Amino acid sequence: MVRVMERVRIGILGASGYTGAELLRLLAGHPAAEIRWLTADRNAGQPLGALFPHLAHQGLPSLEKLEDVDIDAVDIVFCCLPHGLTQAVVESLPDSVRVVDLSADFRLRDLDLYEATYGKPHEAPALQAEAVYGLSEHYGRAIAKARLVANPGCYTTAAELPLIPLLEAGLIEEQGIIIDAKSGITGAGRAAKEANLFGEVSEGFHAYGVATHRHGPEIEQCLSDFSKAPMRVTFTPHLVPMNRGILATIYARLSAGADLETVQARLQAAYAEAPFAKVLPLKSSPATRHVRGSNLCLLAVHPSRIEGEIIILSVLDNLVKGAAGQAIQNMNLMLGLPEASGLGQPPIFP
Amino acid sequence: MVRVMERVRIGILGASGYTGAELLRLLAGHPAAEIRWLTADRNAGQPLGALFPHLAHQGLPSLEKLEDVDIDAVDIVFCCLPHGLTQAVVESLPDSVRVVDLSADFRLRDLDLYEATYGKPHEAPALQAEAVYGLSEHYGRAIAKARLVANPGCYTTAAELPLIPLLEAGLIEEQGIIIDAKSGITGAGRAAKEANLFGEVSEGFHAYGVATHRHGPEIEQCLSDFSKAPMRVTFTPHLVPMNRGILATIYARLSAGADLETVQARLQAAYAEAPFAKVLPLKSSPATRHVRGSNLCLLAVHPSRIEGEIIILSVLDNLVKGAAGQAIQNMNLMLGLPEASGLGQPPIFP
Amino acid sequence: MVRVMERVRIGILGASGYTGAELLRLLAGHPAAEIRWLTADRNAGQPLGALFPHLAHQGLPSLEKLEDVDIDAVDIVFCCLPHGLTQAVVESLPDSVRVVDLSADFRLRDLDLYEATYGKPHEAPALQAEAVYGLSEHYGRAIAKARLVANPGCYTTAAELPLIPLLEAGLIEEQGIIIDAKSGITGAGRAAKEANLFGEVSEGFHAYGVATHRHGPEIEQCLSDFSKAPMRVTFTPHLVPMNRGILATIYARLSAGADLETVQARLQAAYAEAPFAKVLPLKSSPATRHVRGSNLCLLAVHPSRIEGEIIILSVLDNLVKGAAGQAIQNMNLMLGLPEASGLGQPPIFP
Amino acid sequence: MVRVMERVRIGILGASGYTGAELLRLLAGHPAAEIRWLTADRNAGQPLGALFPHLAHQGLPSLEKLEDVDIDAVDIVFCCLPHGLTQAVVESLPDSVRVVDLSADFRLRDLDLYEATYGKPHEAPALQAEAVYGLSEHYGRAIAKARLVANPGCYTTAAELPLIPLLEAGLIEEQGIIIDAKSGITGAGRAAKEANLFGEVSEGFHAYGVATHRHGPEIEQCLSDFSKAPMRVTFTPHLVPMNRGILATIYARLSAGADLETVQARLQAAYAEAPFAKVLPLKSSPATRHVRGSNLCLLAVHPSRIEGEIIILSVLDNLVKGAAGQAIQNMNLMLGLPEASGLGQPPIFP
Repeated sequence: MVRVMERVRIGILGASGYTGAELLRLLAGHPAAEIRWLTADRNAGQPLGALFPHLAHQGLPSLEKLEDVDIDAVDIVFCCLPHGLTQAVVESLPDSVRVVDLSADFRLRDLDLYEATYGKPHEAPALQAEAVYGLSEHYGRAIAKARLVANPGCYTTAAELPLIPLLEAGLIEEQGIIIDAKSGITGAGRAAKEANLFGEVSEGFHAYGVATHRHGPEIEQCLSDFSKAPMRVTFTPHLVPMNRGILATIYARLSAGADLETVQARLQAAYAEAPFAKVLPLKSSPATRHVRGSNLCLLAVHPSRIEGEIIILSVLDNLVKGAAGQAIQNMNLMLGLPEASGLGQPPIFP
Repeated sequence: MVRVMERVRIGILGASGYTGAELLRLLAGHPAAEIRWLTADRNAGQPLGALFPHLAHQGLPSLEKLEDVDIDAVDIVFCCLPHGLTQAVVESLPDSVRVVDLSADFRLRDLDLYEATYGKPHEAPALQAEAVYGLSEHYGRAIAKARLVANPGCYTTAAELPLIPLLEAGLIEEQGIIIDAKSGITGAGRAAKEANLFGEVSEGFHAYGVATHRHGPEIEQCLSDFSKAPMRVTFTPHLVPMNRGILATIYARLSAGADLETVQARLQAAYAEAPFAKVLPLKSSPATRHVRGSNLCLLAVHPSRIEGEIIILSVLDNLVKGAAGQAIQNMNLMLGLPEASGLGQPPIFP
Repeated sequence: MVRVMERVRIGILGASGYTGAELLRLLAGHPAAEIRWLTADRNAGQPLGALFPHLAHQGLPSLEKLEDVDIDAVDIVFCCLPHGLTQAVVESLPDSVRVVDLSADFRLRDLDLYEATYGKPHEAPALQAEAVYGLSEHYGRAIAKARLVANPGCYTTAAELPLIPLLEAGLIEEQGIIIDAKSGITGAGRAAKEANLFGEVSEGFHAYGVATHRHGPEIEQCLSDFSKAPMRVTFTPHLVPMNRGILATIYARLSAGADLETVQARLQAAYAEAPFAKVLPLKSSPATRHVRGSNLCLLAVHPSRIEGEIIILSVLDNLVKGAAGQAIQNMNLMLGLPEASGLGQPPIFP
Repeated sequence: MVRVMERVRIGILGASGYTGAELLRLLAGHPAAEIRWLTADRNAGQPLGALFPHLAHQGLPSLEKLEDVDIDAVDIVFCCLPHGLTQAVVESLPDSVRVVDLSADFRLRDLDLYEATYGKPHEAPALQAEAVYGLSEHYGRAIAKARLVANPGCYTTAAELPLIPLLEAGLIEEQGIIIDAKSGITGAGRAAKEANLFGEVSEGFHAYGVATHRHGPEIEQCLSDFSKAPMRVTFTPHLVPMNRGILATIYARLSAGADLETVQARLQAAYAEAPFAKVLPLKSSPATRHVRGSNLCLLAVHPSRIEGEIIILSVLDNLVKGAAGQAIQNMNLMLGLPEASGLGQPPIFP
């Protein structure tokens, strides 16, 4: 392990998507990060600025093919490849290199569930067995020792952070949790699809993947780690005409004996020392624009009109706490760096 | 009552807001409508085009003070005044004039509930007693005979259209209904408030009025008309960075014996003849952009991940079916005109 | 020729793009229009609502292959195919069918200029010779008699309407005209390109095709029809993060003897009877949102800070007056219908 | 003067607007900045997070009244008050405190021009005499010694950076320069005005202040510092439906002997060492989204369709290089800190 604030030599696999670009934006402010190489198969040979003009003036390396980079020259690799492609690539990496994988390829421990959810058999079951789920706030000790961290999905992080402490403490019922989630368009990546055109997305709103979105099983797996019985939740994602941000509106029933104040106190205690998960005063209204560009996740608890029920709001930036920011947070944990290194910049508003 | 397609002489009270402008846009295509006068107290004396340049070339009357217009010269008045101001104004109108009120002032029958919800005593209790709730599809006979129609709220219309037929038929349980609703910004009107500035609204998303929004009691009153017992629902509104559109994501539990197909069949039967409420095939994904500028309300039923539960999606344009369009639909019903007169224009997309 | 308000039987070639959809939206309100068939090669066999859910409830025909439609069953064809493909298709149509072509394929009379601008030889030079340029306000007599009308580009219409009357009257100098134009994204069509994704377009602004955009030669050809000498202009297009609308900011020098008032008077006289070109009072500020969804073009003249120069603002909706609306206006002229038939709906705002 | 990287004690006057918030966002990453106090008269007593929830978790001081702060406790004050109010306030500050004023109050040296432009007499003419215009790249030596720096306007910075080197070198003619500029809405500040509502701004585009905008005289004053004769330019601002960013499209005529390459070479030489002004390759297309959130200004030169003319594109973030970022750059120059301190963060995209 490197010592604190020694240089961390970093490679990024699949740097041509929004997640790769966001890693580079955030790592530019990391006091220990040193970007050694970037891969992007189709765009190999191009300067980064050809794909991301906003990063053209940062002195970053050009894009290369995976087979052309010196993998041993790095301490850690961020893997931003599409899901399905990632398992084989990560398996090909030398053991000496630690990996934070931002795809979905190593998130589901149950290989059958993986196959049912992603429609193909897992290609690296042995690796899966050692992968640690990278929800930094709750799997931190395992992350610190992991070679391979499976960075959580954006929706799942927004849902898991508020629910874990409450399930763990038995303050809410395990049945009947509804997660109504709304995301900006960057969650869909940079692929050229008609459905993601400005003309199709702007000035409109819709639900998608109702009851079938792949983050459903991931949320259930994670929550089940902290509940008495295996969890089953309702999860509905929606697309908001904006670039960044997720808001999850979560409906839950209080357990016998619990009330609004015990819920609030539990969340506050759970995240009292957390650098990024912030519990707002009761009945607050967090907005995605309050976290844009930052690694923050803001939580707020509300009473419902129905006795014995509560509503929890959770917001984060899907590209930061929902992807690249949490990946860096995990890198910090893995390498013994201060957890918040390179993640201190405030949100950008408007 | 005028006979079909005789001219309908129309006055609009409070024509300087988005709802007034939308009435004028839609009425321009109504074969029988004749706009006689427009009021706007602060802006009296100005041409309409000074407030709404998009209507400058329509040959519409200038804005006047209420005391200056010839009220008897019209058959029907659309009242677009802010809530709280409307009761006294409508009370001052002669009995000969029929009224569609687009404010919230006459929507709640229970005067105590009105006072609790709007924070002041009702000023026209006698009028309230004769007001008819203007959800066109379900109160049509009463609307036809009404002198005063209380046009429903935008959120409430989106929630009530899918739920009424199912409650009426006993296909869903009356307890535990959750309405997670999302609206464009025009629902907030044209008032100059910091919270509604482009810089504050764009590129962001948030919930507001959680468990306290005034459309909650209105939804409960209406649904209770069609249920066995008084209803209590969870209702959470959110603000989407777009101009027009509401999507309601509704979570409900099936009654014993009901399933997805019986629900779908019931909705299809309920709206088989309805010109504007359209039931999409099972598992469809209606988007607000599919109804923009039109009086359509699109409904779609989905299974949940939880056995015995369903998710219903409902979309409409908050300024049309959620306000001005439904008001015109009600006018048509009141005056014996074809229900869809003037409301046939397709949505505008993109 | 059909007589006024007899049914006009219409076919649309290439109905799967934004322009085709916009034709269908507008024609739904045309008292004489009867849509007989729609073609869309890749999507043949699909209902229109599969591509354009907003038109799913209009009772329109499904999409067919060109070879499967009964071409003789229509009086007029709107051709919305991509440029380059159109010449051969139009040549294959029977002489009995009149055509409004919305592509660029027949806009440039000079075959060498066509080849230089579009990078390939013209494939239907004989047809080109009979094509009439479809700027309705200025080529109306020829349009009325034409079999084939080449509907103008969106930018070009915005530039030509204010400049033609002034050049014709000799009120501005022919040299040094600068057209700085800004357009919404629908001008780029519905093709799935990375550059047109919401994430790439929103919250940003840029110029493109600087000095090389293909509408430059088209503007010059048209203006030269009304000037003493062949024209050469500066034309710079920009992309605005919005769906619809073009604003052209035009810089010109007054001829000796001309001043702001003579310019204003000339424009007012030129368009006094025009149903869609509207000259606003001096120093007005037309906005694209004032014409959205309508066939209007608003013009406003301003003095410059530089003596002897003027600035003209011109706005229109690129999908309506810049494409489908003007195409219908041309159809009306070709068939002896009232020029504004089906185009009377007011703009939609917000 | 403080020594390099000693702490700089900072006060902000008028911290409740977008510019104040942006200073705080950027200063959070400045290695020497220490925020001592923030004033906001109407909102005094409130925590900063009440006005700017995105800054609630930064440990910043609450808002105070000007009369309650310890002015002597700071080395430098950023003044973000509205223009018109600023002159008297700055005059009341002790001489020991250095000031970067972000209003327009000290930008125009000619008191008569100030009065003509801003409609009231200058209230601090003596101070005006010592104020230095804060275009960092071109007035750096004077800024380093100044007590009072008048930070330039956002439009003016975008226009001046490309034009100064070319005028200085005599490569373009001084007559006939046209600056067609487009800005996001945050340039209008956070005041609650109907014209700035989301419903009014989104999905639309318009020009404003044509030939009369107050940045016109400011541009002329600055350019005249580098030209042979007093300058007169055409300047037209437009409003883009986005939050941040300015793009200026500048039309100019080459001087005899100059060509595209000499222009490009001159700009490259002028900014070879500049940390924030970047000259892109000939014919590049800079976009505002390439600089969002950063202090960069990107420049690109294009040939025109007209022989002997050129088009220059210039983009910046109006809240950063156009306001708060340049103000910090000026602070760095005034205090002998590295010019780019605290301004190194890359743009945020999407």
